[in-house]
Amino acid sequence: MIVTLKGNNPDPKKVELLTTWLEGLAIRTHFIVGQHQTVIGLIGDTSVVDIDLINSLDIVQNVQRIQEPYKKANRKFHTDDTVIDINGIKLGGGNFQIIAGPCSVESREQICSIAQSVKAAGSTMLRGGAFKPRTSPYSFQGMQAEGIELLLEAKRLTGLPIVSELMNISHLPLFEEVDVIQVGARNMQNFELLKELGMIKKPILLKRGLANTLEELLMSVEYIMAGGNENVILCERGIRTFETATRNTLDISAIPILHNKTHLPVIVDPSHAAGISSLVRPLSMAAIAAGADGLIIEVHNDPSQALCDGPQSLTPEAFDHLASDAHNVLQLMRGFKQ
Amino acid sequence: MIVTLKGNNPDPKKVELLTTWLEGLAIRTHFIVGQHQTVIGLIGDTSVVDIDLINSLDIVQNVQRIQEPYKKANRKFHTDDTVIDINGIKLGGGNFQIIAGPCSVESREQICSIAQSVKAAGSTMLRGGAFKPRTSPYSFQGMQAEGIELLLEAKRLTGLPIVSELMNISHLPLFEEVDVIQVGARNMQNFELLKELGMIKKPILLKRGLANTLEELLMSVEYIMAGGNENVILCERGIRTFETATRNTLDISAIPILHNKTHLPVIVDPSHAAGISSLVRPLSMAAIAAGADGLIIEVHNDPSQALCDGPQSLTPEAFDHLASDAHNVLQLMRGFKQ
Amino acid sequence: MIVTLKGNNPDPKKVELLTTWLEGLAIRTHFIVGQHQTVIGLIGDTSVVDIDLINSLDIVQNVQRIQEPYKKANRKFHTDDTVIDINGIKLGGGNFQIIAGPCSVESREQICSIAQSVKAAGSTMLRGGAFKPRTSPYSFQGMQAEGIELLLEAKRLTGLPIVSELMNISHLPLFEEVDVIQVGARNMQNFELLKELGMIKKPILLKRGLANTLEELLMSVEYIMAGGNENVILCERGIRTFETATRNTLDISAIPILHNKTHLPVIVDPSHAAGISSLVRPLSMAAIAAGADGLIIEVHNDPSQALCDGPQSLTPEAFDHLASDAHNVLQLMRGFKQ
Amino acid sequence: MIVTLKGNNPDPKKVELLTTWLEGLAIRTHFIVGQHQTVIGLIGDTSVVDIDLINSLDIVQNVQRIQEPYKKANRKFHTDDTVIDINGIKLGGGNFQIIAGPCSVESREQICSIAQSVKAAGSTMLRGGAFKPRTSPYSFQGMQAEGIELLLEAKRLTGLPIVSELMNISHLPLFEEVDVIQVGARNMQNFELLKELGMIKKPILLKRGLANTLEELLMSVEYIMAGGNENVILCERGIRTFETATRNTLDISAIPILHNKTHLPVIVDPSHAAGISSLVRPLSMAAIAAGADGLIIEVHNDPSQALCDGPQSLTPEAFDHLASDAHNVLQLMRGFKQ
Repeated sequence: MIVTLKGNNPDPKKVELLTTWLEGLAIRTHFIVGQHQTVIGLIGDTSVVDIDLINSLDIVQNVQRIQEPYKKANRKFHTDDTVIDINGIKLGGGNFQIIAGPCSVESREQICSIAQSVKAAGSTMLRGGAFKPRTSPYSFQGMQAEGIELLLEAKRLTGLPIVSELMNISHLPLFEEVDVIQVGARNMQNFELLKELGMIKKPILLKRGLANTLEELLMSVEYIMAGGNENVILCERGIRTFETATRNTLDISAIPILHNKTHLPVIVDPSHAAGISSLVRPLSMAAIAAGADGLIIEVHNDPSQALCDGPQSLTPEAFDHLASDAHNVLQLMRGFKQ
Repeated sequence: MIVTLKGNNPDPKKVELLTTWLEGLAIRTHFIVGQHQTVIGLIGDTSVVDIDLINSLDIVQNVQRIQEPYKKANRKFHTDDTVIDINGIKLGGGNFQIIAGPCSVESREQICSIAQSVKAAGSTMLRGGAFKPRTSPYSFQGMQAEGIELLLEAKRLTGLPIVSELMNISHLPLFEEVDVIQVGARNMQNFELLKELGMIKKPILLKRGLANTLEELLMSVEYIMAGGNENVILCERGIRTFETATRNTLDISAIPILHNKTHLPVIVDPSHAAGISSLVRPLSMAAIAAGADGLIIEVHNDPSQALCDGPQSLTPEAFDHLASDAHNVLQLMRGFKQ
Repeated sequence: MIVTLKGNNPDPKKVELLTTWLEGLAIRTHFIVGQHQTVIGLIGDTSVVDIDLINSLDIVQNVQRIQEPYKKANRKFHTDDTVIDINGIKLGGGNFQIIAGPCSVESREQICSIAQSVKAAGSTMLRGGAFKPRTSPYSFQGMQAEGIELLLEAKRLTGLPIVSELMNISHLPLFEEVDVIQVGARNMQNFELLKELGMIKKPILLKRGLANTLEELLMSVEYIMAGGNENVILCERGIRTFETATRNTLDISAIPILHNKTHLPVIVDPSHAAGISSLVRPLSMAAIAAGADGLIIEVHNDPSQALCDGPQSLTPEAFDHLASDAHNVLQLMRGFKQ
Repeated sequence: MIVTLKGNNPDPKKVELLTTWLEGLAIRTHFIVGQHQTVIGLIGDTSVVDIDLINSLDIVQNVQRIQEPYKKANRKFHTDDTVIDINGIKLGGGNFQIIAGPCSVESREQICSIAQSVKAAGSTMLRGGAFKPRTSPYSFQGMQAEGIELLLEAKRLTGLPIVSELMNISHLPLFEEVDVIQVGARNMQNFELLKELGMIKKPILLKRGLANTLEELLMSVEYIMAGGNENVILCERGIRTFETATRNTLDISAIPILHNKTHLPVIVDPSHAAGISSLVRPLSMAAIAAGADGLIIEVHNDPSQALCDGPQSLTPEAFDHLASDAHNVLQLMRGFKQ
């Protein structure tokens, strides 16, 4: 940690107060006196130092971390890829999976039909929303408990593990047989929810917030892991920028950056990132080429029978085509590694 | 609502399906056939129409709302300013208030001393965090229940109503005597929390999310109001942009824009917006000049006794000076009106 | 074009003024009177209508285009892919090319050595900066005229067409033998420069501005094409967002979006987007998988002899490896098409 | 300058290469060896060190400046406010001015009538666009040379100094009698233009780019000042964010931040920032309250005679009202100082 003081002539009493306090934390200090500024290097385990506290001292101009503030998720202290086991399906560390399913569970027929289609196309997990975070209170909020029931029926029918979003910790009992709990982008910094999910053992799929940095994503992971749950899957799903041609901007660089910073698996949600179904295929291919460990894709049921296809959803046929090509790209990319 | 179809020769069967469905919702349709595109105008109460559903039809290129999607917060249907009564203190509709206090409650002495200082300086409400949303699980998470107790002591001592942040609905019983419940920026779209707060009667101070539009802020208000709680105070506290000279970018335009769109009071948090104590004063003055109904300002206790002043906190003296000048600016601005 | 009026009872005299003016432009108007608002649909060639002018009328709330404001670059009016011929090298319409070379030309040895390396690795064009846009006036501004001379030597040596950035139209005579003129991100809306480049015939490589939408990029293309130069290559090179882990955020979705909106070729600059050399390979692979027509990559010379490798530059060996794998991905992606 | 090396065991030969090179630049180095990382403090005049060059070394993880990279604009080396003299009108250092006028010069009657109105209302300078940067090549590009002629007529009539935008250095001879040359937001990093403007003596009004940081703005100032022209006025005019309720987001914090970093005057353009005329007044008041040295405001001529009022322009009456209240706020703010 590097602390830059204001000017190069700070009040010696205040500086001593600071160094004494740091020594109490077993941190050694190293002074560099420049022409216009004095800088202090902090040596030791600075993860115990509250950066905001130092930053707030009136003699301090700014503080910069050298070490990352996350520990359990940090690749430096855990060099091997983490492999998450989801009811026998492995994700991460070279194990690539496609999770597919509808935005919302709408009926038994819908979810069972889609589950069978996506399984046939090579998807190994089923996604489906029962509790839906909607910007408007007047929009459909999901089938809720009944939706979870229908997902479990589809699971029994196909054997596919299921992934569904939890928005309220009081709903946790309903998720007992859900295989992966999804935390949506809007709840990425709902720290109370994260803490509770740290106390269970089920795999958590944590989506990046619309305006959160990758470091903040890893700090949110840390909330879950610090509680004892080390089964976390990260998901890039697009960030909010000034561009309006897509709903969000898929941050494709997040994949290699996260792989460098953490040992946890990283998947991509091309459907929500773009909000346009014709972009799902190119973004999926790009995600695999950039090294993603998996995809989570929206697939809707027979569009001829529904008014609502979902602007970002694929037909089962389009998904089948995508999944097949995706595996070819994956195969080629694996051949490149050595 | 304006629906633009893809091309100007859409499948007539699909178009009929859409218009029939809309008629069922008591919406009349009006077609405009252009050279390259056909546009449908929807006439009637389009608040019942799910925009995502229309948008998802394969014959549709895009949908644009003409009417705003929020109703209870909408100035159009409620032209008079809402005045919130907080234990006898009025906010909004010409009633300006300054809420002040420390970032976190740290001790009885600290909160009582600050409460007395800010009251003497003209502040009419006391803020203080007992439950703190922190990016890192390793940072201090607040004094929690004990912090609320100390806030209530400061309230009994000074008579100042108190404002404190709620992060978890299960903590609600602890907030029984808290006068205003704050929803932090990171929870602005925690819809489950908003729904629960709609079912109580206590005033809610809803902070704008770091990356949320003003329309999204009003939709989150709508979650609270739709539940029956119409006592909502909006708070602009800076948005996330590319600029790094300030922690966030205070969106000063939010004040007149929100006053135009909603009848609810709008206050400004200059301390969190900038993250730099020397900016609190100019941003406070600017907020009043732009028409804010109040300010919420961080004030810390005697800095000579504390390691941590808070980089964005004012001393009681600086706050006293600011509060006095603030009232002069307010007086002048009021003279300008009509 | 859809004009929404303020309220549904606008001043009839002002409305007539507007419709009369529109009729003079051969635009028919179509009124939709809603409950709260009146909307006017404009039918005809609305590209002649100044949207700002309409928007500025006090009876108007807002104006929305239905048709895109760009014509010559618009895929709707020119469905076939444009193929740019660069001294015999074809780019676009299925012709993929890799442009490679150093950030700045530094010496004869450097540019000639790199030119030979990248040619051997399969690059078909040489890039190199002679005039460098630098944030600081105190940074190296490029070898300028001498740099262009050295690029031309490398061209004579290897036969590779060259791409170099022009920052000042008065330098145009120096670029006579340069094959492609690059317009940098900071000059994307330097309309005076674009107009001048519209009057020559040489291919222009137009980089997207750091904070420009794809529609603005296409409008800047329109400046060049309107002047008569239809040889424009678009380049996505990352946009400015809140994320700081990468220098910019590569907008991978720009590739399929641009292919949908325009017939012009779209290439990607992974080196500048990320600003980190280890990201060049995954971003290059992703760009090809998303359908890019080419790549422009920074390659530096022997790092053991230079203090400066460029944080975003590849060694010739790394580039050779990347170029070979890139062609395999391209081959696979082509096989998917039918 | 602080250089963080990768790991704490870097190649000693490469480290020596670096330190030897730095010593050649008269920079002393100071090593701090931490548990996981080694940091080098650079002491001396680091403004001569190319940060990109250091950053690019393969042993280097990152480089952080302690000193600001701008010198001539830096408040640290020039503590007194700079006062710009514009034909006898002083701006900065306590001298507040309002520049007003139309977006574009349209006719002799228009510009002369507005000039007289704004002078009567207390404006001390006249603005007017003759060369207009327009996103579309099909939009009106301004009256050009004739527009400058008309501005000069208005100047002769009223005695008001004039401010007008230059987009192309070849137009400079036309600007001989223009008092202040404006560089628009899109040209803030048109370094070739800035260099040329550094070689004249006329005051330059430099607008912040839509996506440029305050540090980048000061570096662009440095291009002008390094050439010898120290008469630079900075202008905040809104930045590009995700919010769509306003055209841009006025960064009100830019005013105190810039006053802290530089001695140059800072003015605000509320008209372009918001793009909505009803926001011009509150944003103007806020700008003064935050300490702006001036305002630049769009005022249009008689709206009853023109189709185009400009969505962001005020009527002469509204401007008169604003200017009068602005001076009252200014008076109050001045009373607060010391």
